[in-house]
Amino acid sequence: MSEYRGYAGKSLRFLQESKVKVGDTIKVTEELTYSGILMPRYELSDDQHIVLKLKSGYNVGIEVGKIKKIELISRQKLTKEIPSDIKTNSSLPKVLLLSTGGTIASKVDYRTGGVTPALNASELNAAIPELAKIANIDAEVLFSEYSENLQPEHWKKIAEKLDTCSKSEYKGIVITHGTDTMQYTAAFLSFALSGFPIPIALVGSQRSSDRPSSDAALNLISAVRFVIEGNTKGVFVIMHHNESDDLVVSHLGTRVRKNHTSKRSAFKTIGDDPAFLILDKKIEKNLKKEFFQQKDYNPKLNLDTRVALVKYHPGYDPKLIDYIIESGYQAIIFEGTGLGHIGKTMYDSVKSAKKKGLFLGMTSQCIDGRVSMTVYESGRDLLEMGIVPLNNMIPETALVKAMWALGNTKSVDEMKNLMLEKIASEFSD
Amino acid sequence: MSEYRGYAGKSLRFLQESKVKVGDTIKVTEELTYSGILMPRYELSDDQHIVLKLKSGYNVGIEVGKIKKIELISRQKLTKEIPSDIKTNSSLPKVLLLSTGGTIASKVDYRTGGVTPALNASELNAAIPELAKIANIDAEVLFSEYSENLQPEHWKKIAEKLDTCSKSEYKGIVITHGTDTMQYTAAFLSFALSGFPIPIALVGSQRSSDRPSSDAALNLISAVRFVIEGNTKGVFVIMHHNESDDLVVSHLGTRVRKNHTSKRSAFKTIGDDPAFLILDKKIEKNLKKEFFQQKDYNPKLNLDTRVALVKYHPGYDPKLIDYIIESGYQAIIFEGTGLGHIGKTMYDSVKSAKKKGLFLGMTSQCIDGRVSMTVYESGRDLLEMGIVPLNNMIPETALVKAMWALGNTKSVDEMKNLMLEKIASEFSD
Repeated sequence: MSEYRGYAGKSLRFLQESKVKVGDTIKVTEELTYSGILMPRYELSDDQHIVLKLKSGYNVGIEVGKIKKIELISRQKLTKEIPSDIKTNSSLPKVLLLSTGGTIASKVDYRTGGVTPALNASELNAAIPELAKIANIDAEVLFSEYSENLQPEHWKKIAEKLDTCSKSEYKGIVITHGTDTMQYTAAFLSFALSGFPIPIALVGSQRSSDRPSSDAALNLISAVRFVIEGNTKGVFVIMHHNESDDLVVSHLGTRVRKNHTSKRSAFKTIGDDPAFLILDKKIEKNLKKEFFQQKDYNPKLNLDTRVALVKYHPGYDPKLIDYIIESGYQAIIFEGTGLGHIGKTMYDSVKSAKKKGLFLGMTSQCIDGRVSMTVYESGRDLLEMGIVPLNNMIPETALVKAMWALGNTKSVDEMKNLMLEKIASEFSD
Repeated sequence: MSEYRGYAGKSLRFLQESKVKVGDTIKVTEELTYSGILMPRYELSDDQHIVLKLKSGYNVGIEVGKIKKIELISRQKLTKEIPSDIKTNSSLPKVLLLSTGGTIASKVDYRTGGVTPALNASELNAAIPELAKIANIDAEVLFSEYSENLQPEHWKKIAEKLDTCSKSEYKGIVITHGTDTMQYTAAFLSFALSGFPIPIALVGSQRSSDRPSSDAALNLISAVRFVIEGNTKGVFVIMHHNESDDLVVSHLGTRVRKNHTSKRSAFKTIGDDPAFLILDKKIEKNLKKEFFQQKDYNPKLNLDTRVALVKYHPGYDPKLIDYIIESGYQAIIFEGTGLGHIGKTMYDSVKSAKKKGLFLGMTSQCIDGRVSMTVYESGRDLLEMGIVPLNNMIPETALVKAMWALGNTKSVDEMKNLMLEKIASEFSD
């Protein structure tokens, strides 16, 4: 963060002259007197105000022209921790730790109260001494992005990196990842790396590593233990199961969803118990079937993002579908209502989409449960129009699968077959 | 259903000549011989085939030109039940029962295996003799539509009808409704009829009234009991709570969601226990605060559908936002990731939307939990761009509220104030 981040023009000059910087604790007097931390500002800001974070946690904007007095109270020193040398023990199993960013690789910035990316994979490794006792860890940074900024091209890069490890000595691979879109990445890796010979565990945290309530260390240790001791193949998401610290679980990468904005137990396997419980002393398996339907490794790393996710609701304007068709999209995944319905107002646009050769798939915004389009007249009408019911695939997984299927096939028929073929436990029985 | 529904041209002539009708059990011989029920066909069908539903439940299409022989096996008589006269007991409380359609007002069509609308409000009333023992029920049919076909103009008609009852003798109003979009209608009525003097209960069923596992009767009886005995005001959704038949509950109309495609217990109050438990002998109240924040009835029945719901995901094409802006939408409700984020790829389009004066609100696709946009850099960037965090309003409720707020205000600022004001328990504490 720059010393004057976001400040420009008048307010920048004022701060420079006053010799205070972003992150300083200062006291400012205009009509009232405020004490707080000088906050950075953002792109759209004017140059007339400075912003303080008060002790209460609230921010206050103060007009530069009205400031009578400004004092520096204290300045926090920025320290950079240097990771201690990690002792490797060659008798331990080898695990690859890939870092992509996210809260698990973040620290609270005590100057601004926000969270910023700070730790890389080797720092994480060094910060959690327990890791060196259970595995011989190679750490590598792929990206340093919050996961809301990860895009399908990042998924592809991760898959390509993993593909190079398909014949390595690693016992398993752990990927640290922001929790916001972890389920999307997990789904892509599940399809792209079908049959991958060693387990892949994505792990994140809901509270940054240096907070007392952080779930980072326990989740990461559990992920490493899981890929070593789990005795399974597949793509899994490893996260806290509840608000206490005694249970971390492993979710199927194609059936997991972030179902709460902030709880450490935000992640849930939809429609089932988690695949594995990672207990203190052992790993308990709930999973009844293998994660991958095919045993052999069969990578298909392409994808094509010309897929739209359409959540139907009353008042949905079918012109948006017409625009999607005109824009060259090749597939639409509907989040229909209930068993897989959309209103009659949509029918003409659906027919146009079909005529143009788009793949049309149906999931449900209920999220849990199967779509079933033969029960009601609406469903039967939509079936007749060529919408393909996608069983109980969750909408986000269906979207990712469609991008993957479109990227690895040459016709809508071939794509349809791939969408209906179970690849990586994306449907449940 | 017409006797030849969906058949035309060649196949229609063939059926007429063969004297078989939709719903008949027939035996057809071409290369193989099939027995089954003649199914209706749908708009996009050609005129070369007839469709049989086999005993296995599968449908088979048979080319008319190849049929060697067709025989009528049996024809089911269509009966129309006439409701018996309902004895009214003037000492019982008066309740208005409005029917809008949906499974609760449906029957299985044993000819086709599908479910079709069949019962109207007074038939329902007659079909469930328990109702006459607890209330003096006036029944009225507003529409007969599956709820995936209900649109915002239907919400408005329901609200206008209810508005005429604000000074009636009714103890409460029960609305039968399809479950697919019940939560959207409930949310609209909650905002439009703020402070309505008597309780409004929407009720549906997941299994049609004439199935052994139907939840229609118990849900309806519970809804009537709730508006009489609940001793509360507000808009509620009354549905089964679990798979056994001992507990029906009442959900807040603004915090309820259909979370499973088929279970009788599909509906859940997000982030809390249901507001009321409707037990055999009594109604238990969980609700801590009044449903409406304002005591007085203050109807605002307008709405404006120029609101888009945008679910962000990796690979979301910001051009869709640009199209939404160009098309004259006045507001966008984002279903962001996690605490309320969208990727940096969206920023330019968000800035354009803001520049054009659209209202931009943020909810989370996690569904449960609060958005909090000051924790991470992404959130703070989005706040600076003018996106308004909508606390823990669920995305569907936020969409409906935005349509309502836009229809009842004259400026974006006024709309923003209304969006942030708690009207009908749409945020929780």
